[in-house]
Amino acid sequence: MAHVSIIGTGTMGQAIAAAVSRGGNTVELLGRADVGTPVTGEVVVLAVPYGAVADLVAQRGAELAGKIVVDITNPVDVETFDSLVVPADGSAAAEIATALPGSRVVKAFNTTFAATLSSGTVGALPTTVLIAGDDADAKSLLAGIVTAGGLRAIDAGSLGRAREMEALGFLQISLAAAEEIAWTGGFAVAA
Amino acid sequence: MAHVSIIGTGTMGQAIAAAVSRGGNTVELLGRADVGTPVTGEVVVLAVPYGAVADLVAQRGAELAGKIVVDITNPVDVETFDSLVVPADGSAAAEIATALPGSRVVKAFNTTFAATLSSGTVGALPTTVLIAGDDADAKSLLAGIVTAGGLRAIDAGSLGRAREMEALGFLQISLAAAEEIAWTGGFAVAA
Repeated sequence: MAHVSIIGTGTMGQAIAAAVSRGGNTVELLGRADVGTPVTGEVVVLAVPYGAVADLVAQRGAELAGKIVVDITNPVDVETFDSLVVPADGSAAAEIATALPGSRVVKAFNTTFAATLSSGTVGALPTTVLIAGDDADAKSLLAGIVTAGGLRAIDAGSLGRAREMEALGFLQISLAAAEEIAWTGGFAVAA
Repeated sequence: MAHVSIIGTGTMGQAIAAAVSRGGNTVELLGRADVGTPVTGEVVVLAVPYGAVADLVAQRGAELAGKIVVDITNPVDVETFDSLVVPADGSAAAEIATALPGSRVVKAFNTTFAATLSSGTVGALPTTVLIAGDDADAKSLLAGIVTAGGLRAIDAGSLGRAREMEALGFLQISLAAAEEIAWTGGFAVAA
């Protein structure tokens, strides 16, 4: 059984917490202001907006060492809604990995709207969590947590693929914002 | 009724030709070596690999002026399979639009494997063609051709979104190459 800490009590944090619990794994759900409460999970999900990640990493960097850190962010430029705020050849995940050299950082959950984590479906297909990272064991452990929770998991490759996953997340958000798709739908994956 | 020229007789060119025909629109399918045959379509699909586009545009640029030009490429670096060969802040579609200032360039069909254009489904969901471009009429005309052919079409926004569509196309190809998904599956869109 895995023990998972989730920092961030918004829609995504709650939906991920519920999925982890469904799978029989234990969850600690912390508010991002709970900086005095130590994280106890071997897996820590940073379920905060991209703009809040730098502070969180500065506050908790030391205690995240040795842990699997899950980046779920979509670093969309909310001023223009026309690009991401990370460098075009980088990603939020790459930035976080650089800031947390003692952690094993994986990218996941940024391509699945919260509603699809709760329902378990995207249209007529099962909700699939793409997982990118450079540590095979970390990806495998997270995939096990995800599948135990009734969702599908796919290994999306190295952490370099976070760049494409963030592009996908941005495109999906822009389609929903333009009402081309619903926030309960989005990109599904057919194996 | 629209008349569509497709340059490139590979798997994608054939699948797009079949979809156009299904919708009752007319198709002219040209080999990329048929440089002496003029294109007669108001819509011209460049169904050639990215590496062949520059030559094609150089050969046919003048006669493509005034037409809707559809870029379907995924400019994957086939040496490393780890990135695209276009600049990180650009796209193949942006390059083609720059090279063809007299054409209305749209990005489409790069996120749908050929098999899904033929079957009309991605898993249990209908095959959806994402269409990005800066000319609303051009996108609308192409969307009409696509939907007449039994597929779904979604307006993915400005031609700037081609960058994210190419990231999605690359990610999808890398998942299929790693056998995480089949070449008959991939990303579906739930509205």
